[in-house]
Formats: sequence, C-alpha cells, structure tokens
Amino acid sequence: MPTVAFIGLGNMGGPMAKNLLNNGWAVTAFDLSESALSDAVGAGAVAAPSATDAASGADVVFSMLPAGKHVKSVMLGDTGVFSHLPKGTLVLDASTIDAATARELHVAARDSGIDFMDTPVSGGVAAAQAGTLAFMCGGTAEAFLRAKDVLKAMGNEEKIFHAGPDGAGQVAKAANNMLLAIHMIGTCEALAIGAANGLDPSVQSAIMKASSGNNWSLQVYNPWPGVMDGAPAGNDYKPGFMVDLMAKDLGLAIELAEQSSVDADFGRRASEVYQSLQAAGLGRDDFSIVMQSLVKSDGA
Amino acid sequence: MPTVAFIGLGNMGGPMAKNLLNNGWAVTAFDLSESALSDAVGAGAVAAPSATDAASGADVVFSMLPAGKHVKSVMLGDTGVFSHLPKGTLVLDASTIDAATARELHVAARDSGIDFMDTPVSGGVAAAQAGTLAFMCGGTAEAFLRAKDVLKAMGNEEKIFHAGPDGAGQVAKAANNMLLAIHMIGTCEALAIGAANGLDPSVQSAIMKASSGNNWSLQVYNPWPGVMDGAPAGNDYKPGFMVDLMAKDLGLAIELAEQSSVDADFGRRASEVYQSLQAAGLGRDDFSIVMQSLVKSDGA
Repeated sequence: MPTVAFIGLGNMGGPMAKNLLNNGWAVTAFDLSESALSDAVGAGAVAAPSATDAASGADVVFSMLPAGKHVKSVMLGDTGVFSHLPKGTLVLDASTIDAATARELHVAARDSGIDFMDTPVSGGVAAAQAGTLAFMCGGTAEAFLRAKDVLKAMGNEEKIFHAGPDGAGQVAKAANNMLLAIHMIGTCEALAIGAANGLDPSVQSAIMKASSGNNWSLQVYNPWPGVMDGAPAGNDYKPGFMVDLMAKDLGLAIELAEQSSVDADFGRRASEVYQSLQAAGLGRDDFSIVMQSLVKSDGA
Repeated sequence: MPTVAFIGLGNMGGPMAKNLLNNGWAVTAFDLSESALSDAVGAGAVAAPSATDAASGADVVFSMLPAGKHVKSVMLGDTGVFSHLPKGTLVLDASTIDAATARELHVAARDSGIDFMDTPVSGGVAAAQAGTLAFMCGGTAEAFLRAKDVLKAMGNEEKIFHAGPDGAGQVAKAANNMLLAIHMIGTCEALAIGAANGLDPSVQSAIMKASSGNNWSLQVYNPWPGVMDGAPAGNDYKPGFMVDLMAKDLGLAIELAEQSSVDADFGRRASEVYQSLQAAGLGRDDFSIVMQSLVKSDGA
C-alpha cells in the first residue's frame, strides 16, 4: 500500500486524510493538536511524533497548513522535510499561502531533488468531507501527472487543474477567491436594491440567475436568508466560509496584484470590506454576512 | 389576427417586431426613422404616421424606446397613446428606463383604465433577433398573464418573469445589469492578476468556471481576447453591449440605490469605471473592454 505523510489535520486536512485512507492509501500523520492526531489514528492513520518523522519512508508528502510560515518551517532547514527525503519524492502543499513563498518552496525543493507542487484547494469543508475538492496545481507537467493520482482520492478528478508553473496554483486560488468576494458583494448590493424597492429576493434571485447577473453566489450560496436551503444565510450566517479566511485570501490576492502592478481596485475594496467585517467582530461568521450589513445599516 | 402596435424600431425593436410578425401577429408600426419603418414594412408591418395612430385599433401596444422621456412623450398627455385607447387595452413598455418614470406611467395608465406593464428585456440584439429575450415584468398578476402571450413571440418563455409590482421590471433589470458590470470588472481584475503572474487566461478561466469564481462573464462573455469564440473581446471589443448602454443602466441602478438609501458602493464604483471609459472615447465599444484598460495601463 503506498503511503502518504499527511501534515496538518485541521478542519480541511482531517477529512482529507480520511478520504485518502478510504481510497486505499496508508497515512502517516502529524499535527500539533493531539486530538486532531488521535482522530486520524481512529480512522486508520499512524501517528508520527514530527512532520519529518511522518515523511520518513512515505511515497508522497502532503501538507495542509494555515500560512506560508508554517509550510516553510515544516519543509525547509536542516530539520525540515525536504532535507530528509529521498530524491524524487513528491511533496504536495495544499495550504493556501502567498505565491512568493510557494515559489521559494519550489526553488528549495528543486535544490533538494524533490518534486514539489503547490496544490491549493477550493470547495471548503463540505467538499473536503465529500472528497469532491477542486485542486489548482502549480509546477511541472511531470509532477502534475504524479500528483493527480493522489489528489483524486480527495477531489473531483474533473476539477484537478494544472494551473501553470511554480506558484500558479496559489495565483489561481487567490484570483478566484477575489472574484468570489467581488461577485458576492455585488450580489448583496443587487438584492438590497431590489428588496428596498419591493422585489421578493427569491424572485429577483431567480431572474438574475436566468440573466447576465448569474454567478456562483446566486447559484449555490444565496446571501439572502431563506432564499436557498442550506446556505449559511439561513443559519444566521454561521460558516460556511469564514470572513477571516476570505480576508486572508483577499490579502494574498492584493499582495499579488501589487507585486505585479495590476490595479485591482475592486479586489482592494473587497479586501477593505472584509477587514471592516473583521473589525466589527464578525470574523468567524460566514462571508455572505455582507448582506446583513447592507440591509441593516440602511433599513432596507 | 390580433394586432400589436409597435413603437420604436431600433436595434432591438426592429428584430422584435419581425418576430411578432413571424409568430402570427399583425403589426402596425411607428418610428421617427423612415428607414427603420420601411424595414418593418418590408417584413410585413403596416406603417402608421404617429404612435397614437399606430395604437388606434390595436389589441396590444408595445414600446421599445431609448429613455423615460421618450416613453412619457408617447404615452401621456392629450395626444398620447393612453388617452386614445379603449379601456382595458394592454400596453407593454420594454424600454429600459428609470423605475420612477415607470411607476408614473403605471399611475397614469390606471387613471385611463389601461392595463400597463414595464417589461424591460435582457439578452441584447442577438437574443432580440433569435426571439430568445428575457423579460422582467412589473405590474399586476392579471396584466402579466395577458402580457406573456405576446412576449413569448419575442422571448424565451422560461425567461419571462413577473418581477413584482409597478416598476419591478425596471428595478430587476437595473440591479441585474449592475451585478453584471461588477462581476465583469472582477473577472477582468482576476484575469489580469493571473496573466501578470504567468497563468494562461484560458486555463485560468476554466479553473474559475469550475470554482466559486464562476459567473456569466466567464461562462458566455470572456473578456480576454481569444479565450472564447464569438465573444466581443476577440473582435477588438466591437459590441456586443456598448459601454454607453452599460453606463446608462448603471446610472439607473445608482439612482435607485440612492432613492432607497442602499449603500451600493461597488455599483457606484462600477458606474465610475464605465463613465471613465466613456470619457476615454470608448462609449461605442463593448463593455468587456475594461479588460484592455487593466492590462494596458499596467503592462501586464
């Protein structure tokens, strides 16, 4: 049985590791949280005392961590994973991190003879549990072919994309989530104008879905409470996808825009919107809560 | 044969009148332009010397005019259509106009015993020609039932919506097009960031279409030249849907937002973007040309 070393068993990593186990991979796991680790062991993983120990002897190393600094601390340096792996080992980092750090990791991996890819995901906890994540992969075509084999145990094969060269997965992820924030805010504004002018949000949503306003927020994540069964709006804006995470992703997108001199005005303003929501103490609510602020503040 | 009086035979009205003729309606037509009028006569319409003459004896009166002032001048006053029609005649205005004027027309129609609806369209010239327009209708349920019968000769029956009470069609249209402008600008920013960071716009578009960034601009109107066959981007941004028209619609949306105290910040900024494009002499180009300005100005 081929073995994946799984580093980072959080809300996303935990269910992803279980899907690897369910699909016939052996998993050696590491997480700083003992409860997360014992949960994975309960599902059939073998616990390791460190990331580097988990990686030792693994066919593939997979990480799912909060930010670039965590990935660097796991992978780089004398005690890091890269320097302890046989040449040619495949290392996949599915964390959402800044593209510059991802590129730095690619360079370091190449120096160590490691086959590295940045493979951030889309779809959230529900898709992680269902094994239907999308993966956006940056790196070589050869690494992508190898990566697909393990990623399809956690994702929807049709949504495993080779986004481009080193770091391209992170670029695609950040740009996509920036676009998501923008059309969510636009959808909220359009619904707020409609409701303030006597339209039923369900009817208006149906019209816009059938027209040129159509977008993912309307299709599967309607921000008006009660329009769509199962959407966070109907559950008092419990996530779903937290404002804190959207604010983080927008920060990464804006950083990319600035580094490459793209004037992403709407992206920047979306970033400001989500920072304001964080400042208002709504960081752990769902990102569609921008609807509430638009309606509340104006009595619509 | 039931007769429709068709007032306003422009880029949209001309093909719509032809679809009525093709679907078995008689059409008495009026337009200030003699060439537009003779074009309709060539397709089987009967020319009238004025809007009120066209309306005389018609079962349904239909108007497709540039702005609220034109509709008022046709419908209201002693020489207007409303005062010359038998009580109970159905009058449909498919022009995109401000909701306040639409509501004023509803009041005047009611005073004259006319069954009025605001029925603005979505889909553009291509859908007008193909007879697949969407209609967003404001007014009573009774009027909507009668209207559907004539509208389906010009539109897709599944996209003929009763948006709500008086003016609701205009509200739905303005809000929808505001949302369209916002996700178009967001899509352009996301693609600009991707391209500046080494992504192939076709690959990035495929990824975002399969992810939470998905929206109508990506699905059917990709703004990056060459990504999508038939999109205006590949035809040097020839319309399509002109910047001038988008700027007009955004003006209507922002007016509505302000009248109802909704803080539509992204809508307002989208309006500024399209006004800037007009000021730059690009009013007659397609509204997806915002892509070009993002890439050009930054060398992405």
